[in-house]
Amino acid sequence: MSNPSLLILAGDGIGPEVMTEVQRIIAWYGDKRGLNFDVSEDLVGGAAYDAHGVPLHDDTMAKAQEVDAVLLGAVGGPAYDDLDFSVKPERGLLRLRKEMDLFANLRPAQCFDALADFSSLKKDIVAGLDIMIVRELTSGSYFGEPRGIFTENNERVGINTQRYTESEIDRVARAAFELARKRGGKLCSMEKANVMESGILWRDVVTEVHAADYSDIELSHMYADNGAMQLVRAPKQFDVILTDNLFGDLLSDCAAMLTGSLGMLPSASLGAPMENGRPKAMYEPVHGSAPDISGQGKANPCACILSFAMALRYSFDQGAEADRLEAAVESVLASGVRTADLMQADGGTPASTTEMGDAVIAAL
Amino acid sequence: MSNPSLLILAGDGIGPEVMTEVQRIIAWYGDKRGLNFDVSEDLVGGAAYDAHGVPLHDDTMAKAQEVDAVLLGAVGGPAYDDLDFSVKPERGLLRLRKEMDLFANLRPAQCFDALADFSSLKKDIVAGLDIMIVRELTSGSYFGEPRGIFTENNERVGINTQRYTESEIDRVARAAFELARKRGGKLCSMEKANVMESGILWRDVVTEVHAADYSDIELSHMYADNGAMQLVRAPKQFDVILTDNLFGDLLSDCAAMLTGSLGMLPSASLGAPMENGRPKAMYEPVHGSAPDISGQGKANPCACILSFAMALRYSFDQGAEADRLEAAVESVLASGVRTADLMQADGGTPASTTEMGDAVIAAL
Ligand SMILES: CC(C)[C@H](C(=O)O)[C@@H](O)C(=O)O
Ligand SMILES: CC(C)[C@H](C(=O)O)[C@@H](O)C(=O)O
Repeated sequence: MSNPSLLILAGDGIGPEVMTEVQRIIAWYGDKRGLNFDVSEDLVGGAAYDAHGVPLHDDTMAKAQEVDAVLLGAVGGPAYDDLDFSVKPERGLLRLRKEMDLFANLRPAQCFDALADFSSLKKDIVAGLDIMIVRELTSGSYFGEPRGIFTENNERVGINTQRYTESEIDRVARAAFELARKRGGKLCSMEKANVMESGILWRDVVTEVHAADYSDIELSHMYADNGAMQLVRAPKQFDVILTDNLFGDLLSDCAAMLTGSLGMLPSASLGAPMENGRPKAMYEPVHGSAPDISGQGKANPCACILSFAMALRYSFDQGAEADRLEAAVESVLASGVRTADLMQADGGTPASTTEMGDAVIAAL
Repeated sequence: MSNPSLLILAGDGIGPEVMTEVQRIIAWYGDKRGLNFDVSEDLVGGAAYDAHGVPLHDDTMAKAQEVDAVLLGAVGGPAYDDLDFSVKPERGLLRLRKEMDLFANLRPAQCFDALADFSSLKKDIVAGLDIMIVRELTSGSYFGEPRGIFTENNERVGINTQRYTESEIDRVARAAFELARKRGGKLCSMEKANVMESGILWRDVVTEVHAADYSDIELSHMYADNGAMQLVRAPKQFDVILTDNLFGDLLSDCAAMLTGSLGMLPSASLGAPMENGRPKAMYEPVHGSAPDISGQGKANPCACILSFAMALRYSFDQGAEADRLEAAVESVLASGVRTADLMQADGGTPASTTEMGDAVIAAL
């Protein structure tokens, strides 16, 4: 049987720096645990634009469709700010999400014990926080038609369309309920059913899926504005949060920031099962390309490493190895190794990206 | 000259309770300061539905169009949860906003010194916080057409339309720049120009208005997801935040919760000048109808009282009297008077709604 395949799209800014550490960890799994992957690499984002004039080449897209999982670093940076919308680095990411049909974006917001002091929230409010946000990723206002800037009555009009079908809501709801069943058994669905019909349909379909197949899960509904409030007020009330693409963008960033561990947070974007039973999948850190620190060897590779742990769990059925890798990262943190983002200003000399990678490998 | 006119729509839940205290303060201004208002009252929300089968009667709408300012309490409650979307209590609020064309929603997020401990954020991060969020209130995904739940290919589809015209963005941007000029001279505009064309137009128009008439203001742009993060991480970096209707809904609730003073926060919704030069205006607390405590005399009337202070400032050109009322509320807080929402669990006996009103009047 051939090895599972991985496509690495390191992207821009600190993307390649953190991905280097992941590749060392992938090599470790081959050497020490006999877990071998066929790894290929390609360009995305600004890097792809520089090479090909597009943020994702068709050949890269085709490869992404064939592999067992994509690992993505980060896209974008100030050098690309003035590009036309249609070729912005972000478009590469959105094309991958859409064409691979990665409808379920899993974003854990976890507060690491060793880092609870870094949150801007009081320690008792965030210590032990462990939320899973499931964000719909292939529809809604990001992709709905009609869209564009038009001229009407002699002025410009900007239009986007929030659009959800029953089956789009159904499938992401099922993914979220399944996760809730493996976790704390609670799911809170967030929309604006008080002002938007798309929110009414969202709430109705989630309620129907729950009644049909997941009545063991404790389901609640919350307006998304209240959700933003409650995340700040008392985030530990949540287990799994299910929401749409646009609300999920804001709410998951808010939740990520609560933890004080932005440089630590991974994500998985999952689609339907392929012929081999594995879901279409892309894994990436929640942080961006961080142009302010790129090229300096300062970036924290943990979010990208933990994204690979999610790949082990969700793509390769290696839950025990995922646990091992996560435990290694936690023990490194507990031992006091810190990249610059995890230190107070007067905390001494930070570990470099490579040193953090070394420490994780040593702890494996 | 006739007195300025006020229409009071106390609404549901704690709305009427907090409004009673505002009416006492209005009476105080007549008695003690010779500031008299012609006050009328009417129904909105669930109360209007109970009486008329609609959340806002046409006669009430007509009155709201004629008065100098509307004071609104709160709408909604569990008794109305199962009503049809078209007659939900919230529709009354949205009709007022839309037909009065109240395009600029001003939401101060202020952390009162005496209450900084109530925030879930660390004290140094929120102490002294004073942000003004300007949310567009009459367009965007709340009102765009087409909207509804349709059937396509044998399944339901929920559709809403995010739609902004150049002139809609222009006018709310001007309102925000004017406020920035009177405040800290900084404005941060938030959208998702990286994924939505409506966000691109938003950014372009704000940039144009700035270049044309407000180049003295320090303008920055931020993606709304990063905005949510930055509000949690370091909210004091902001002075005025300008954003659209839907993002503003989430971001202003998030900002409000940061302060720890949800029961203290007022809002103003302003439209174009009327014939008498006053803007169309509605004032309301940020909190909702709070069904859990309604009817118990526990509600904090300060947010509603401070909304009346905003009316004094923005509708009646009584800036000094607005300052006086705000100072009275602050001194009452500093003296230790607290409604239940402003106390720790073991804080002793809380002041009732009426006692808080008494204390504010005594401090005037
Ligand atoms: C980079 C951007 C297109 C993206 C999004 O808006 O989805 C990012 O914010 C995210 O959350 O992954
Ligand atoms: C009650 C609801 C319709 C309203 C809104 O969504 O605008 C509220 O959340 C607000 O922010 O004023």
